[in-house]
Amino acid sequence: MVQQLPARVGDELSEVDTPALIVDLDAYERNLGLMASIVGDSGKALRPHAKTHKSPVIALDQMALGAVGICCQKLSEAEILWQGGVRDILIANEVVGKRKQRRLAKLARSMRLTVCVDDIENLRSLNQAAEEADSIVSVLVEVDVGGGRCGVTPNLAGSLAAAAADSPALRFAGIQAYHGSAQHLRSVQERQSAVAKAANLAEAAKADIEARGLVCQTVTGGGTGTLLQDIEYPIWTELQCGSYIFMDADYGRNRDTRGTPYALFENSLFVLSSVMSVAHSGKAVLDAGLKALAFDSGPPTVADRSDFIYSGPSDEHGTLTIPAHEKLALGDRVRLIPGHCDPTVNLYDWFVGVRNDRVERIWPVSARGALS
Amino acid sequence: MVQQLPARVGDELSEVDTPALIVDLDAYERNLGLMASIVGDSGKALRPHAKTHKSPVIALDQMALGAVGICCQKLSEAEILWQGGVRDILIANEVVGKRKQRRLAKLARSMRLTVCVDDIENLRSLNQAAEEADSIVSVLVEVDVGGGRCGVTPNLAGSLAAAAADSPALRFAGIQAYHGSAQHLRSVQERQSAVAKAANLAEAAKADIEARGLVCQTVTGGGTGTLLQDIEYPIWTELQCGSYIFMDADYGRNRDTRGTPYALFENSLFVLSSVMSVAHSGKAVLDAGLKALAFDSGPPTVADRSDFIYSGPSDEHGTLTIPAHEKLALGDRVRLIPGHCDPTVNLYDWFVGVRNDRVERIWPVSARGALS
Repeated sequence: MVQQLPARVGDELSEVDTPALIVDLDAYERNLGLMASIVGDSGKALRPHAKTHKSPVIALDQMALGAVGICCQKLSEAEILWQGGVRDILIANEVVGKRKQRRLAKLARSMRLTVCVDDIENLRSLNQAAEEADSIVSVLVEVDVGGGRCGVTPNLAGSLAAAAADSPALRFAGIQAYHGSAQHLRSVQERQSAVAKAANLAEAAKADIEARGLVCQTVTGGGTGTLLQDIEYPIWTELQCGSYIFMDADYGRNRDTRGTPYALFENSLFVLSSVMSVAHSGKAVLDAGLKALAFDSGPPTVADRSDFIYSGPSDEHGTLTIPAHEKLALGDRVRLIPGHCDPTVNLYDWFVGVRNDRVERIWPVSARGALS
Repeated sequence: MVQQLPARVGDELSEVDTPALIVDLDAYERNLGLMASIVGDSGKALRPHAKTHKSPVIALDQMALGAVGICCQKLSEAEILWQGGVRDILIANEVVGKRKQRRLAKLARSMRLTVCVDDIENLRSLNQAAEEADSIVSVLVEVDVGGGRCGVTPNLAGSLAAAAADSPALRFAGIQAYHGSAQHLRSVQERQSAVAKAANLAEAAKADIEARGLVCQTVTGGGTGTLLQDIEYPIWTELQCGSYIFMDADYGRNRDTRGTPYALFENSLFVLSSVMSVAHSGKAVLDAGLKALAFDSGPPTVADRSDFIYSGPSDEHGTLTIPAHEKLALGDRVRLIPGHCDPTVNLYDWFVGVRNDRVERIWPVSARGALS
């Protein structure tokens, strides 16, 4: 169920109950502005990914700076974004099954809703659901551009696109060409190479579609990690960056051209944690473990204290190893930079927006747990 | 925010929206009964750990079969269990900070509430909070019996116990002696050895306390993995097993005396997932990834299909590798056994209780996200 607020607007940061999900509003706003500017200058459209934030409030912040719409991964996320006022959503994923497709088709009555397809039967049943709901659903053919997950090979894109174009309740809109794993390749050379391959595959798919006399209006993909590579390729008309608003410890392991950490965007997301036991010297036990942080991309780092090492998470605890000359007391706070922002956000009910060590804004993680 | 129900009571399992958290009610009830019987026969008390289920409904099921009360790890969990009708709760953890201790002391007015301490200053401020709230808080001295996390060494137990006994608003109740990491040691020999050491340390702490003329009424600890060892040691008066109701893939890697999987309790918890892409042969992409399953103890296994291998989770997807002669179609369902039950449950709003492939009972994961 929805948990109590960890703070009130106006509280000092030191009064916030822990663990809490903190957004440094200055850093967040700089990230928002920088991305709008980079993508704006590139001539491409920006459609930020809401799987990072799960929040219509943030989605509207992004659209206020020029984003054309929002992406999400799940139908239930789209429903919640719609409730929060977003009216142009791409579900950058397949939606399978009669019941979900009926819900999707119903939602499409009152907004511009786009979804991916990589299967002809799925496309046909989607068209049927849209016909029954008297709505029009836009579809992108998902092309596998290197992720090896969903998506067809480029030579199958044309036939799916033609089937979409021939479906009375569908609108063929273009290609989904997202390469997720490329975002976390460490060196610029690796990311450059992955993006070049992805661009080639997307070009091939586009050619296969255009050979059938169809217009491929949108080619959407790209992400925070490959942004500076993505903008160099004309094939993408639209970029889906999501993590840039928050960043995380794993993105901090990416490198830029000089081999230094990729720090175009700033860490604006922190888990505020308290010391709850100092019974062992050289260690401090924190109140944030597996239920407060995602560990799929490694443990959190400690903001401003690279000499404090977080390890050994259990359900509700983590252990900080600290240098011998350091001492932490019960109740001391540390700011943790999550290993992976998206699934960490999914553990919380509330964002606590902080500026100058004061709580300025609290808003819900509205699509937390929106799995279906 | 709270997500929509994935099913209605009376639905067939095939109609449940995915991903969904499924409880096999027959297996769950057998697990409940078997634990009540084993601990009952041992002459010890059972105080099941709610960090597994986060549900007052399940807590009351456990107490109906004789459990003396419930454990949890967080104050906010205790508040939610209280709201659901539980009136004897041990917070098997330290509660630090004036604000949390005030909440705790207030809650203690209307129930039997026990909490752990491992620090004298924390004990003093707890007493002050309880005095201010005009309540009595029971305290256990937490002893580190091998986990290396919270808890004092046995020789410091007596002084803390004496301070508790001397505190007008505290009631000294005994020792918390839980060895978490011992639960997942793979061989019976390793678990036996860890439990023997834990018992020795708990005995030493008890002796240090009794040397001060205090009665150590409760010694609480133990868990699902070490149950058959715990019951052999008279030192523990109370066992805190939690995972036994659900089990998980990681517990399935524990071994019994014959070297075969430790299967005293059954897997009753599953994540129901659907196939959402079959664009690559030999693979099926599932709709359950990092937001639907916890991966800290490895990926899920597939129920009834040890030849299907789940790998490569991303935020919303997982990939099943299936034998060449097998074929899965879009919309096919698989039941996944989570790697680790506790943090997986924490990702869901609803338990869907199923018997004979029909939804019989749906209840909330009330303390999901209760982090503070």
